[in-house]
Amino acid sequence: MTRFTEQELSCDAFLGGKLHLFQPLKGYRAGVDPVFLAASVPARPGQAVLELGCGAGAAILSLAARVPDLGLCGVEIQPAYADLARRNAAYNHRALEVVEGDLSTLPANLRERQFDHVLANPPYFRDGAHSPARDAGRRRALGEETPLTLWIDTAARRLISRGYLHMIQRVERLPDMVSACGGRLGSLEVLPLAARTGRPPDLIILRARKGGRADFRLHAPLILHAGDRHERDGESYRPEIQDVLRNGAALRWP
Amino acid sequence: MTRFTEQELSCDAFLGGKLHLFQPLKGYRAGVDPVFLAASVPARPGQAVLELGCGAGAAILSLAARVPDLGLCGVEIQPAYADLARRNAAYNHRALEVVEGDLSTLPANLRERQFDHVLANPPYFRDGAHSPARDAGRRRALGEETPLTLWIDTAARRLISRGYLHMIQRVERLPDMVSACGGRLGSLEVLPLAARTGRPPDLIILRARKGGRADFRLHAPLILHAGDRHERDGESYRPEIQDVLRNGAALRWP
Repeated sequence: MTRFTEQELSCDAFLGGKLHLFQPLKGYRAGVDPVFLAASVPARPGQAVLELGCGAGAAILSLAARVPDLGLCGVEIQPAYADLARRNAAYNHRALEVVEGDLSTLPANLRERQFDHVLANPPYFRDGAHSPARDAGRRRALGEETPLTLWIDTAARRLISRGYLHMIQRVERLPDMVSACGGRLGSLEVLPLAARTGRPPDLIILRARKGGRADFRLHAPLILHAGDRHERDGESYRPEIQDVLRNGAALRWP
Repeated sequence: MTRFTEQELSCDAFLGGKLHLFQPLKGYRAGVDPVFLAASVPARPGQAVLELGCGAGAAILSLAARVPDLGLCGVEIQPAYADLARRNAAYNHRALEVVEGDLSTLPANLRERQFDHVLANPPYFRDGAHSPARDAGRRRALGEETPLTLWIDTAARRLISRGYLHMIQRVERLPDMVSACGGRLGSLEVLPLAARTGRPPDLIILRARKGGRADFRLHAPLILHAGDRHERDGESYRPEIQDVLRNGAALRWP
């Protein structure tokens, strides 16, 4: 399949209506993760930004909704999603260049370019469709290690000196991410995202800098929801988090 | 120097008086870190425990104060501290075998033995005497990487299958620790220790298991002090932490 039909899509509002995304009713649908990822990137107007695996464009178009005048480029392996990212960019009046391709074989003209920022929200291999391998050893055996290394290696090659990678991933992959950065990217910072105070984080945002030499930093978890437990249905995000999700605010790094 | 004189030592109470340690007035003096380390080890009566770099014995003797009938062995490179560990064990009526030596050249009889638990509180290379290298690259260049790998490699060799390593370290060394475990130890869990809620953790306790294959886990930070800031002099430890420090309780892993 190279294109979703209108009947296969929904149109969803993000950032309190600053962004509208057409997304497949069945398939990968963006949640809050790409919004957090975009909110964590300290891009400035005029900079060049590359998203690896941009899907329908949720993360990079969220970033464009906050920071004006960015040069936007996305790579997406699945033709139907690449097409959707182009349509979403046009619908939101953003000039997003979408390169259809595999990270291991980027087209030559992209391999000659460098970016101030690279962002990525690689597949999580959650239980279910993508992979049944919850066991770290089996996962390694199944060869999922190589892809994550490839994501980080590709990011490092496409970054300018002092450029930033931001990546959101499940916390279980922290060792793999840290290992993959070794020798390529430095000044690593990890921001854990936890549902509530005292709960273990489910996700981390990794920030790494090309040529960075500062010590590794582990920040206090960013707590998403108010209260100790789920007490009522509906919105329970903390005000700072609501500001990111509903107003398109930047996520303040400690 | 191979032995501290009485005049060079103080005698300090730990665990609410369950443990007394002679320590040099000038030199390495145990704080709360070895107590937290010992409290994190789920040792059971009858098991064999090895501490790498035991110093005056604060961690392994704290563990012995909580769990009876352990087989206790410590390795210490500095003769004066090895001597002190022996004196402290005798003073507290514990049978602690102290092996004087370097991790890279353990005596043959120790290299033939294996343990249910290994614990270690390697030097932190804080600002000051040990090393002025705050920069990760310079630290690497100065060759401090190799020692931490050596600590973990030695631990892995001395552990029985399914045995546990527990190590307390500064959070900056997390990537080095995780990398050093690769292929040797698995089922990594990291417990960050933070002074207060919302503050970044200063220290982590790493738990790793020989032959472990479970996913990496990052726990919610263990918060040491009550309140958002330092409000008064004196004790402000949370009750759970006081129970560890003053009553010798186990530290509950999530």
